[in-house]
Amino acid sequence: MPTNREVPGVPGAQGAAEFRRLFAGLAAIGRDHRGGWTRLAWTSDDRAARDWFRREAEALDLAVRSDRNGNLWAWWGGSGSETGASPGSAVATGSHLDTVANGGAYDGALGVVSGLLAIRLLQDRRVRPVRPIAVAAFADEEGGRFGLATFGSRLAAGTLSPERVLSAKDTTGVTVADATAGFAVDLGPDPELLTTLAAYVELHVEQGRALADIGAPVAVGTAIWPHGRWRLTLTGEANHAGTTRLGDRRDPTLPLANALQAARRLAEQFGAVATIGRVLVEPNSTNSVPGLVAAWLDARAPDDGLLDQLVSAWTGGVERSAANQGVACTVAEESRSRAVVFDTRLADRLATVLERRGLPAPRLPTAAGHDAGALAAALPTAMLFVRNPTGASHSPAESATDDDCQTGVEVLADVLEELACR
Amino acid sequence: MPTNREVPGVPGAQGAAEFRRLFAGLAAIGRDHRGGWTRLAWTSDDRAARDWFRREAEALDLAVRSDRNGNLWAWWGGSGSETGASPGSAVATGSHLDTVANGGAYDGALGVVSGLLAIRLLQDRRVRPVRPIAVAAFADEEGGRFGLATFGSRLAAGTLSPERVLSAKDTTGVTVADATAGFAVDLGPDPELLTTLAAYVELHVEQGRALADIGAPVAVGTAIWPHGRWRLTLTGEANHAGTTRLGDRRDPTLPLANALQAARRLAEQFGAVATIGRVLVEPNSTNSVPGLVAAWLDARAPDDGLLDQLVSAWTGGVERSAANQGVACTVAEESRSRAVVFDTRLADRLATVLERRGLPAPRLPTAAGHDAGALAAALPTAMLFVRNPTGASHSPAESATDDDCQTGVEVLADVLEELACR
Repeated sequence: MPTNREVPGVPGAQGAAEFRRLFAGLAAIGRDHRGGWTRLAWTSDDRAARDWFRREAEALDLAVRSDRNGNLWAWWGGSGSETGASPGSAVATGSHLDTVANGGAYDGALGVVSGLLAIRLLQDRRVRPVRPIAVAAFADEEGGRFGLATFGSRLAAGTLSPERVLSAKDTTGVTVADATAGFAVDLGPDPELLTTLAAYVELHVEQGRALADIGAPVAVGTAIWPHGRWRLTLTGEANHAGTTRLGDRRDPTLPLANALQAARRLAEQFGAVATIGRVLVEPNSTNSVPGLVAAWLDARAPDDGLLDQLVSAWTGGVERSAANQGVACTVAEESRSRAVVFDTRLADRLATVLERRGLPAPRLPTAAGHDAGALAAALPTAMLFVRNPTGASHSPAESATDDDCQTGVEVLADVLEELACR
Repeated sequence: MPTNREVPGVPGAQGAAEFRRLFAGLAAIGRDHRGGWTRLAWTSDDRAARDWFRREAEALDLAVRSDRNGNLWAWWGGSGSETGASPGSAVATGSHLDTVANGGAYDGALGVVSGLLAIRLLQDRRVRPVRPIAVAAFADEEGGRFGLATFGSRLAAGTLSPERVLSAKDTTGVTVADATAGFAVDLGPDPELLTTLAAYVELHVEQGRALADIGAPVAVGTAIWPHGRWRLTLTGEANHAGTTRLGDRRDPTLPLANALQAARRLAEQFGAVATIGRVLVEPNSTNSVPGLVAAWLDARAPDDGLLDQLVSAWTGGVERSAANQGVACTVAEESRSRAVVFDTRLADRLATVLERRGLPAPRLPTAAGHDAGALAAALPTAMLFVRNPTGASHSPAESATDDDCQTGVEVLADVLEELACR
């Protein structure tokens, strides 16, 4: 529950109360003393959120199942694979229950709560869908613990190798294999499940201020910028901070300074974003010239060519700066996602639904990764973004008004009715 | 024991074998898998090193006592305070047993081993000192665990407040009070002990390449540069690395880059040294613009005025850079030591001893802190530096040749004889 703030609701006293109850139930899990929410994957808070999902979905008479990757699916009308429904017959919505460390209340949570409430709205409207509808909660979307974002959706789509992930470790040395041991998973591709889906539509709080600037409550997502992570390792020589002459130093913090500045300068130059958000220094003692610095570049650009140019220019500059200081330099690509363009026919249908309600239907790309982007490798996907007045994301300051959340739920219900009844 | 390297020895087969045995016994404690030595204060490795000291000193018929601050004293001829010797009657040498994380084999260890072996040499020479001689092993000289360098000597000299230190925490949250609980200490000034001392002479491996450059095995220390530590805190706003527009960011890594570069530039300008060896980033996640960066400046200069100017210029530059990025900036002085000039009469006597052996007697200041510097507040102190061919310090690459270590022990024995027999 956001403190000192009204919980989002749906129109009508009963709908509003139901939304408040649902959202509050999830928001009570994983409160962080710093003011936000921390629900990292495969923790007791993650388990509590999963239990919350199962309980609330079953209260709507949905059948809840966990797939082989730990993604939860709440089915209205029986899952395609288990009811013998033909491939491409089902419709899914959803998002994720995990958060980054000290993140906001809405990221992931809003999509899951809105999915459940959209089904409740359709049930209240006595809609009889001709296709099964699922609300999904994907496992470890944020990658906040193991650095493997969109974990569950990429495994299901077959674009993330189970061999690669099982030995990944969190900062305390716990592996994915250890962490998932109590969650009955058998990580790997899940084509049987995904082929039953005709479409996946994810509702998500916007992660910038674009909708606030144009005065629209909801947008249709068009694309996800290509993005990636690169690990920079600068190896100098640890030495005494007092007695080592400047000319004898091989200090990796000087090329680090270059890397920090170049990331910003090149992002401006290419119309992109580039961030160094994680830095490790060894031995990290006040009276030592560091022997090693590792830093991670997160870069995203409007197209793959621009992203390649940005990273190449950044790497070249840091390499030259390191060489000037006698510091060894390596840059390793840790992940790289190509641009995703959401299904244009599906996006058009979402825009039509918005217009039918008399709402503007702006179209927005995003530079954030989402399960809808990962699943685009396997089926038609699309997204709805709900206005975020502060524009903050991965921060307790993330926001959305009750009215906009209500509008989002109604639009999502219309979309599911459109896709599952025609 | 340094790997693949001969252990330092003293001339003569018996002396050399004895040195090897002594040095190897201490060097076997606290080996670090990264190739160096890690003996942090008040750990089991520290306790093992203390037990080694007690055992080896008692084998020389020295009486070992721990003072109220956990400094160990091995007395030849009875301590001044316990034998009723008059104030200023005793002579002490020594150094420390602790190391920085993954430090070298010689820093601290060489002074303690040389002290014990110098007494052994005097015993072999059948010298009968008229004053008591002590070999000291000071507690937590490096401050590698709690950030409180020359801990034991400053407490004894009354220049470090026990109230201030008891609540200091290591990186795991253990306080000094917790850590010292099993070491029978009662932290505080120790004037009764220190007033019994006429002089303290510390032998230490050189922490730079000056002696290698001038071709001398041993130097007389003249002074310790003034130095200090300043904590820089840059507070911006944590946000999503993908979706936060560049213009909306308050990114503390950009003024950090300025701080790193300015430290080097100003050190060059003022003929000083300045280092940022410790950096903390929050939340330190690859896909977040950091909300906070803390960094520590270690700066040392030939005199106090230059040091003040350097830190003032650095602070002003970082403040301007932070303001340009909408980042809040504070700089707090965490420690500050004024310049120490060692006792000139004592230094002259050390130089005479070197000349008597036909050795050059170069005089060197140092930018490193030492217990001899801390004790200079209470009694005449001096230092001897032994040549370090690599010039490395606080690093496994720290070095000294067997021959130079042998020379150091002989010179130290001459010095103790000079001071305790005349």
